[in-house]
Amino acid sequence: MISTPPVPLIAIHGGAGTISRASIGTEQKAAYQAALKDVLLAAQQLLAAGGSALDAVSLAVDLLEDCPLFNAGHGAVFTHDETHELDAAVMDGATLRAGAVACVSRVRRPLRAARAVMERSEHVLLVAAGAEAFAQACGLELVDPAYFSTEARRAQLQRARSSDATLLDHDAAALVFRPSAAGAPPLDEGSKLGTVGAVALDVHGNLAAATSTGGMTNKRPGRVGDTPLIGAGTYADNRTAAVSCTGSGEMFMRVVAAYDVCARMAYAGQSLAAAAQEVVMQVLPAIGGRGGLIAVDALGNLSLPFNTEGMYRGFARVGEAPQTAIFR
Amino acid sequence: MISTPPVPLIAIHGGAGTISRASIGTEQKAAYQAALKDVLLAAQQLLAAGGSALDAVSLAVDLLEDCPLFNAGHGAVFTHDETHELDAAVMDGATLRAGAVACVSRVRRPLRAARAVMERSEHVLLVAAGAEAFAQACGLELVDPAYFSTEARRAQLQRARSSDATLLDHDAAALVFRPSAAGAPPLDEGSKLGTVGAVALDVHGNLAAATSTGGMTNKRPGRVGDTPLIGAGTYADNRTAAVSCTGSGEMFMRVVAAYDVCARMAYAGQSLAAAAQEVVMQVLPAIGGRGGLIAVDALGNLSLPFNTEGMYRGFARVGEAPQTAIFR
Repeated sequence: MISTPPVPLIAIHGGAGTISRASIGTEQKAAYQAALKDVLLAAQQLLAAGGSALDAVSLAVDLLEDCPLFNAGHGAVFTHDETHELDAAVMDGATLRAGAVACVSRVRRPLRAARAVMERSEHVLLVAAGAEAFAQACGLELVDPAYFSTEARRAQLQRARSSDATLLDHDAAALVFRPSAAGAPPLDEGSKLGTVGAVALDVHGNLAAATSTGGMTNKRPGRVGDTPLIGAGTYADNRTAAVSCTGSGEMFMRVVAAYDVCARMAYAGQSLAAAAQEVVMQVLPAIGGRGGLIAVDALGNLSLPFNTEGMYRGFARVGEAPQTAIFR
Repeated sequence: MISTPPVPLIAIHGGAGTISRASIGTEQKAAYQAALKDVLLAAQQLLAAGGSALDAVSLAVDLLEDCPLFNAGHGAVFTHDETHELDAAVMDGATLRAGAVACVSRVRRPLRAARAVMERSEHVLLVAAGAEAFAQACGLELVDPAYFSTEARRAQLQRARSSDATLLDHDAAALVFRPSAAGAPPLDEGSKLGTVGAVALDVHGNLAAATSTGGMTNKRPGRVGDTPLIGAGTYADNRTAAVSCTGSGEMFMRVVAAYDVCARMAYAGQSLAAAAQEVVMQVLPAIGGRGGLIAVDALGNLSLPFNTEGMYRGFARVGEAPQTAIFR
């Protein structure tokens, strides 16, 4: 039997949340969509040239980490102690190999550190100083923590600290966020559930997933969310799907959200769309979980569900124009 | 319909591994079994008095952490840097609430810190210094890291460091472990995959799971295994099962072992025994995973599978004598 090779596909997200209460700036909206499109084009090109799903998600998350619009790498949010603690994970659906780092403050590209853990250690998860020492030993770039800081994120921390609201909800604060002539960003920065992530299918039929985050503004130092936890925020298995999540991390951890999509496909025979939809629209809301996920299967099916008002997202199949979206 | 309340049940484990190559000491074997029995009796009494599954697993793990025979709390193994880094997690099957700490060095009872994270924070996982600061703020006892050290574990580190073998296999070393007249411990301390854990069903039909560990002898600082990761080493859901794992943590993480047992029951309609058996005897060995798990469901079914030569384990139903075992 001669089978047609799959059409490679990359999908990305840049966080989910509520629509900004301030007037949404047209320029801001265009800036987010342009940033997403640039990332998609680069990963699409890599896939078109026969590159692996693993390399495609790694490249996409690298670029998203570098972009200050998103809460990962440069532009990461601040902890309560005015520090940055970054988490990232990557998983290879062909081998079930995985790597992750959590609570790193000086690794310029956390996703590359996660991939080094996968490829150059016997471990899956390294945290804090031990993770940084490993990254350094691998020759990865370390930076002064100030590299991650942006003025917009610092202002966000100040508002969160002075607010009585919970860590996740500072809606009023969004009114003064990024007070430029261009208007507010499309999703309320005060309540956005930030992460970046990517899932991909390559021409060989392999799947991969990667996720990276700065966590929650004003978070307690040492808090680790779903992003770097294999099965919670990130999972990939060629037999089912590659999944990257974004949202209120604790709830995604408690229901093992990313792996649950795969388990529903494997054991209940659900389609990718049905599995992803049920996790995001039923399982998570049942315990108050907000956010979304991106998922792709080995047939090239794609699902990008979210239960918030918006999720920065996009996808690109090889040979087709990239598509980006923010709201429903 | 009048339903009979379930008979409460506690099950515990103290690590899995290969049989010691040295002559197994009868006294040593008796000491391990007596330690397991004492823990079971205490938890059984709590359950008989109407105590919750959550309190029963918390008590059992407290006691296992205090016992120097097992690799958790006092008696934890050393990292490569001759420090201790302890991990623990707890989950309540009635509410899907969960709490965990990783990489703590000064918290006397890591499981209590995990429970405090569950009950007194918005988070699920706190690591390293942030976790210790939280434990301290909660009034939990901090100790000098030397509290966790035992001479036997230090000798184990020296042999691991001087060995060319991998982190997990130092079988020859076992020949000189605990060189007392009583002979060697039943499972090879050089290659034992250590953790302690408990699962329970209470009279209200609620399930809970808890796991605690010192990790692997000679491990890289910052390494976090499956123990504190919800879904990997620990999971509980009243609708399916409570599960606590022990073994080569990285493999348990990659297949999300604890949650996989529950997912097979929920989505494939497998029995507890079939689900636990498949994960331990097929899914884990397929990627080289060694170890076992203990699992209980809401009907009082129990499964204690392991793919190594032995696993320190035991269980006690209210009204029946506790049972303990080490080998098959």
